[in-house]
Amino acid sequence: MLLRGGFEMYNERKISSAVINRLPRYYRYLGDLLENDITRISSKELSTKMNITASQIRQDLNNFGGFGQQGYGYNVEYLHSEIKKILGLDRVYNLIVVGGGNIGQALVNYTNFEKRGFVITAVFDVNPRLIGMTIRGVAVYDVDYMKEFVENNKVDVAILTLPRSQANSIANDLVEWGVKGLWNFSHVDLNMQEDVKVENVHLTDSLMTLLYKINEVETEESVNPQTKDDSEE
Amino acid sequence: MLLRGGFEMYNERKISSAVINRLPRYYRYLGDLLENDITRISSKELSTKMNITASQIRQDLNNFGGFGQQGYGYNVEYLHSEIKKILGLDRVYNLIVVGGGNIGQALVNYTNFEKRGFVITAVFDVNPRLIGMTIRGVAVYDVDYMKEFVENNKVDVAILTLPRSQANSIANDLVEWGVKGLWNFSHVDLNMQEDVKVENVHLTDSLMTLLYKINEVETEESVNPQTKDDSEE
Repeated sequence: MLLRGGFEMYNERKISSAVINRLPRYYRYLGDLLENDITRISSKELSTKMNITASQIRQDLNNFGGFGQQGYGYNVEYLHSEIKKILGLDRVYNLIVVGGGNIGQALVNYTNFEKRGFVITAVFDVNPRLIGMTIRGVAVYDVDYMKEFVENNKVDVAILTLPRSQANSIANDLVEWGVKGLWNFSHVDLNMQEDVKVENVHLTDSLMTLLYKINEVETEESVNPQTKDDSEE
Repeated sequence: MLLRGGFEMYNERKISSAVINRLPRYYRYLGDLLENDITRISSKELSTKMNITASQIRQDLNNFGGFGQQGYGYNVEYLHSEIKKILGLDRVYNLIVVGGGNIGQALVNYTNFEKRGFVITAVFDVNPRLIGMTIRGVAVYDVDYMKEFVENNKVDVAILTLPRSQANSIANDLVEWGVKGLWNFSHVDLNMQEDVKVENVHLTDSLMTLLYKINEVETEESVNPQTKDDSEE
């Protein structure tokens, strides 16, 4: 418990959640470099590409033991594969979808997940019209079968794409049955015990934030019509 | 330009982006209270529900002129309607989807958006099998028609659900043609001018972060098998 409170642990080091949230982005950029046959990169070049400071990059990567060499920069392939290991992407994960509606089906149909080792093995729903169907080869089961399935299969992550009214109670059941993490698309915050790992994707909140920003520009322009012109280069 | 740099403007006040990001969550909780016929609430009660401190709530809402009354708390309906106005949710928005794949289709099929005034009016794709179809009444057009459509219809937001290799170039076109905000689901960061409003939904990054957190627990447990027991109440 001492390890929590904003800081997390990796091999005896403390890594802030801000760094952890940036890791997938490093991984993505390094993957792009690899695809373009770029074998090494300085923190300065990477910094320009990623639009963060070089010192931030050095600091972030130092959390995991550095990887950079003075005067050479980073070995892209090595750094990519190390971050892959750190993120735990060197193995396959078993995911289930709870709620076979639009978003749930879209995620099952998203073949890129499988390429990365995120395998959706079952979908659960209450809708008799969906139960018994398959989506890209993945069976849709009655939620009544979910307990048995989760207890007999090591399920790493449950993807919650179900109505908000049911999300909390089902989330608690899933964790009790052995699911390790919840990827929550339901438009509600989950009230879980502190040690349950949750990542929220609140689509409506994200869109609302965007709309606020758009309106703010319009407000600024009407309050001070100069603002737009001033900001242009 | 002076208004930027972490701080944004609302009616002569400066509002941090952290507050703005929390507004949709306030709006959601207040909507829940209204649905449950709760007409007033203290910052303390709201604090318990939302799992943030009461002083944070008072500080956040003070940005918009307070709303609370000593000894009474907040009038839920009033606060809800004020935040609705602040977020600009008292009008209808015109959205287009660029990329009619799984996620794009799922968003068109998501009827809750429409209820909130987020109306998707067109989908654009390059796939001849999709062009000419309708998704829940929304036509799928050839991307070649997109310029004309955007220039003749006031498009507030383009939802980008297209392959990453094309996202940046199309995003720049859309903004040039008059789109005000980009809701980006493509797995790439958009390199836009500073004044373009962008919200990213990087699903794969979000899932990777969750997997890291799950693995971290496993690492902790193998390093120190006591951790789990200690953390249980």
